[in-house]
Amino acid sequence: MATRHTTQILTRLRSLMKDTSVVTEAIQAYIIPSGDAHQSEYIADSDQRRAFVSGFTGSAGTAVITETEACLWTDGRYFNQAEKQLDSNWTLMKEGIPTTPTQGAWLAKTLPVGSKVGVDPRLFSKDQWTPLSKTLKSSGHTLVSVERNIVDVIWDEKPSRPSHVIQPLEIKYTGKSWQDKVKDVVKEMEAKNCSLLLLTALDDIAWLLNLRGTDIQYNPVFFSWLLVKMNGEIHLFVDPSKVTSAVKQHLNLEADIEMKEHTSSPTTDTVLAVLHPYEDVDGFLAAEVSQQPKKVWISDKSAVAFSNLVPEELLCGDVSPVVFMKAIKNPVEMAGMENAHIKDAAALCCFFAWLEKEVESQRTVTEISAADKLAGFRAEQIDFVGLSFDTISSSGSNAAIIHYKPSPETDRPITNREIYLCDSGGQYKDGTTDVTRTVHFGVPTHFERQCFTRVLKGQTNLATCLFPSKIKGNVLDVLARKALWDVGLDYLHGTSHGVGHYLCVHEGPMGISWRVYPDDPGLSENMVLSNEPGFYQDGEFGIRIENLVKIVPANPENNFKDRKFCTFENLTFVPIQKKMIITEMLTKEEVAYIDQYHTQCRDKVAPLLQRMDKKEALDWLMRETEPLG
Amino acid sequence: MATRHTTQILTRLRSLMKDTSVVTEAIQAYIIPSGDAHQSEYIADSDQRRAFVSGFTGSAGTAVITETEACLWTDGRYFNQAEKQLDSNWTLMKEGIPTTPTQGAWLAKTLPVGSKVGVDPRLFSKDQWTPLSKTLKSSGHTLVSVERNIVDVIWDEKPSRPSHVIQPLEIKYTGKSWQDKVKDVVKEMEAKNCSLLLLTALDDIAWLLNLRGTDIQYNPVFFSWLLVKMNGEIHLFVDPSKVTSAVKQHLNLEADIEMKEHTSSPTTDTVLAVLHPYEDVDGFLAAEVSQQPKKVWISDKSAVAFSNLVPEELLCGDVSPVVFMKAIKNPVEMAGMENAHIKDAAALCCFFAWLEKEVESQRTVTEISAADKLAGFRAEQIDFVGLSFDTISSSGSNAAIIHYKPSPETDRPITNREIYLCDSGGQYKDGTTDVTRTVHFGVPTHFERQCFTRVLKGQTNLATCLFPSKIKGNVLDVLARKALWDVGLDYLHGTSHGVGHYLCVHEGPMGISWRVYPDDPGLSENMVLSNEPGFYQDGEFGIRIENLVKIVPANPENNFKDRKFCTFENLTFVPIQKKMIITEMLTKEEVAYIDQYHTQCRDKVAPLLQRMDKKEALDWLMRETEPLG
Repeated sequence: MATRHTTQILTRLRSLMKDTSVVTEAIQAYIIPSGDAHQSEYIADSDQRRAFVSGFTGSAGTAVITETEACLWTDGRYFNQAEKQLDSNWTLMKEGIPTTPTQGAWLAKTLPVGSKVGVDPRLFSKDQWTPLSKTLKSSGHTLVSVERNIVDVIWDEKPSRPSHVIQPLEIKYTGKSWQDKVKDVVKEMEAKNCSLLLLTALDDIAWLLNLRGTDIQYNPVFFSWLLVKMNGEIHLFVDPSKVTSAVKQHLNLEADIEMKEHTSSPTTDTVLAVLHPYEDVDGFLAAEVSQQPKKVWISDKSAVAFSNLVPEELLCGDVSPVVFMKAIKNPVEMAGMENAHIKDAAALCCFFAWLEKEVESQRTVTEISAADKLAGFRAEQIDFVGLSFDTISSSGSNAAIIHYKPSPETDRPITNREIYLCDSGGQYKDGTTDVTRTVHFGVPTHFERQCFTRVLKGQTNLATCLFPSKIKGNVLDVLARKALWDVGLDYLHGTSHGVGHYLCVHEGPMGISWRVYPDDPGLSENMVLSNEPGFYQDGEFGIRIENLVKIVPANPENNFKDRKFCTFENLTFVPIQKKMIITEMLTKEEVAYIDQYHTQCRDKVAPLLQRMDKKEALDWLMRETEPLG
Repeated sequence: MATRHTTQILTRLRSLMKDTSVVTEAIQAYIIPSGDAHQSEYIADSDQRRAFVSGFTGSAGTAVITETEACLWTDGRYFNQAEKQLDSNWTLMKEGIPTTPTQGAWLAKTLPVGSKVGVDPRLFSKDQWTPLSKTLKSSGHTLVSVERNIVDVIWDEKPSRPSHVIQPLEIKYTGKSWQDKVKDVVKEMEAKNCSLLLLTALDDIAWLLNLRGTDIQYNPVFFSWLLVKMNGEIHLFVDPSKVTSAVKQHLNLEADIEMKEHTSSPTTDTVLAVLHPYEDVDGFLAAEVSQQPKKVWISDKSAVAFSNLVPEELLCGDVSPVVFMKAIKNPVEMAGMENAHIKDAAALCCFFAWLEKEVESQRTVTEISAADKLAGFRAEQIDFVGLSFDTISSSGSNAAIIHYKPSPETDRPITNREIYLCDSGGQYKDGTTDVTRTVHFGVPTHFERQCFTRVLKGQTNLATCLFPSKIKGNVLDVLARKALWDVGLDYLHGTSHGVGHYLCVHEGPMGISWRVYPDDPGLSENMVLSNEPGFYQDGEFGIRIENLVKIVPANPENNFKDRKFCTFENLTFVPIQKKMIITEMLTKEEVAYIDQYHTQCRDKVAPLLQRMDKKEALDWLMRETEPLG
């Protein structure tokens, strides 16, 4: 793109970087991270600062602006998109390519000696701050907090922070009361000798309190902060307009939005909620910190602005305990996830049966109209709330863009001449789904089928493997890649992410990638993850096959050193297109696995399609689940 | 063991811990690490402080002594041995068991508030110091340097530091002059803006200078320190008695042991060596540091005593550049490694042919006498220098002890009734070897054969895989374990370590393990590693199959994103016992691989056995390399 639509923005930012009425001291570089003050992956429009500044709208990427340069770091999922969206003021820094410097190394080398690098301490976590600060320091530079966000200063039409109402989630969906969850959290605090815990991640708060919101598209969370005290008292910082009477009742709030006066201290057996305005968190936290007999737990993944309020020797920076709790689904959550996946599979059967007919009849269907139709089929299902992310509905060369989102400018028809890749998911009150299928409505090339079959071999290899409980996810990654590596192919994304229960579709702390997830507690029973290898031929086609899976005990014939071997079980039950498979490339075991998978698809999804009287979808399901033979 | 043979030692140490004529200030705990001042894995007798104090002689383990307690931390390889060797003054702390606290956590909890924990800063690396110091500080304690080693104070009959003569290694073995290597190092220093580099690891120095020694058993290194200056000047700190005239000539030393006066500064094109006494390093380094225009490079893996001589802002703590240079073998080194392995294979053919006959004839052979015989066969080979580690010659249940070393008390006969595992290696002037074979001279059980076959499948799976250049070794680990995991089995050690060229048999920085090697630069062409999965049934038998391999380009049909796919090629060519293999458990490809491997064994080793007129060994080789068919 030759136009330089960011020129004026960069000029204004560079001027502010030297304006000491805005920054305390002049800075030679300014970092604009991707996330919000809650370090969310998906963010509200009001937090799209990096997109506003650079034009790049992907979900991951960091902009760095110096007096003369503007660089954007992003990962392999977004190289194509970033190349298209960035104008010529910008340099794309491809993360994961060995020759690409880190932001710290690049700044250290590029800046004149003694430079100051500024960042908004709300948008930068402590674990981002510490190493970058060290790197810069060792090159004679300094990382400094810039309290006033300078992007906000120049963002004339910045949207306001969303403030939608919050909904309680009933115990029939959550399986555990928020009070019991808080008690578990207090136990973790005691074990770490902490008397105060600040939660800043929106999904931590939503899960812990059994509340859901709609402040961020696709992520049923709401803007808030939560302080948990050792005595079981919880302080929720939230815009009062979001708190309906149903929420007040759910939280047993007798008092209103003001701080409640207690006549006696609650014991650890009681759990008491108090509401405060969203903006009051800093002041309240600072006041509480000064009174703490023990340590204060603020995850290093929270904004460094909060950690800075606590003296270093009082700070516990460990990962929030809620992160580990919500990763292990309880029986009610897991049953909900299973049920949501059957409903979701029914919607996909309706969609593919419809799409096949449309393409056959040469009626015009485009990426966008197909995605809309799919959303409609999902909406027919009970307890459907919305999509869990932007549908990646991508045809032909668009499918090679890993995190593609169709727009009016890029929208392509879906035809019988090229591959169609559809990665989509739903939020249901009983669970979150995420599924990718790649199909061809005409005659795929031999190379496309070879690649598809290798992706499928990898997916099968991972799906069927046994592993000792608690090994880190990164250990398994190669199983999904081996069949591609065997012929010099690969894919530039991870193989698996965790998934929330009616929460974020990307949920930590575990995952399966060649990269190590630093907080991965080890793969354990009742975790839910994706299994999604792929292959992308730039400018031609893309392939991805994605199921969600749960971890279950495997009970093999031996149990070496009581390691408790586990395996995966599919949650997703949508047929895999047989036309794309070269059966001769599969082992006997792989054929048996795929045939068995298709039998399960029938057994689990056909009854719902029958009940819903979806005859075409049912016929499609029966045909697509015939054995490979 | 009921006797408390360490009581007097502990009493004396505890008294010194409070004696301010020895320690600057009283300390409440003293840490005695395993290594020496060069952070060596294998150490000289004069550095066996932890063994002297605790009685535990394993290669890894840390003793911590407080006023009332004495604890020893060691890992799973040594639990049995430590339990036998420690007297009742000691508590064994089993590393790797989730309930075992780290030394820091244990000290933090055990010591009275405000305690001082002492350590000899020569024996503790900076990257050990930093996290421990932080943990202690956050619990109100302090980690302090104790300059005088208090174990040395009470060690009445402490052996003196070995001081054997050094030998130059000719360029026909090294492939590159030490001057050229130093020039490469200077380039790395320039890239990091460093004007001074201190090398403390003995193998770094030996490799860089093309010198070898015999100060530490099995490791051809010599006690020394090396300072490299930006101008190409190198300062070697070494006991003068080790420096023969051959070494002086090799290093182009015109002057003697005293500091040479330069009339003019050398340019970066010249490389100039200067000798100093071993003990002078601190003083010289401190004086140099004060004159440095740029940074001083001292790896965080070196003793913190050295890092402490450099102001924090001047210090570069990155891994020594020599670590990465010596990991990539040059063509001459690689040809030497290949040649050494053929000689080593010939020795092993002689050994196994002999051993089989002895066992058949029911003559008494024990683990120790077999190991001695094997050493004899190796000694017949050209350029043989010695063993590369203690031979693990282990029969029956002893083979289940992963780091077993036969002693007169444990020595078992080798019979036709149980499995014999032999893990051994040689140091040749052209290379270092390390090979494990597991054999049965009678009738193995079905379970033993099943386990052996699964270990072999894992070994084959790793040996034949393709992978993109520069991926970290840990990514591949599961390929060697999958066949075992499939039935609930595993092994509690890594799969692969790097190997030096006529240097340490364990050489970093890469390796293949479920654990991540923090300094792994990624697997690259011309690295040499082991491939050694195993399985151990406690109290019954042990299986390990180990080859050394080199990394070579794979040139598959695709080259996705120019990732340069690599694979492994075997260096070790010793037959794998076919009797132990259940052929039906192998895939067609696995059978072909093993048959091809055996053909290579014949092609490469038979000519040497013929030349040496080793008829029995040759017959054995021909028979053992028949196809599986």
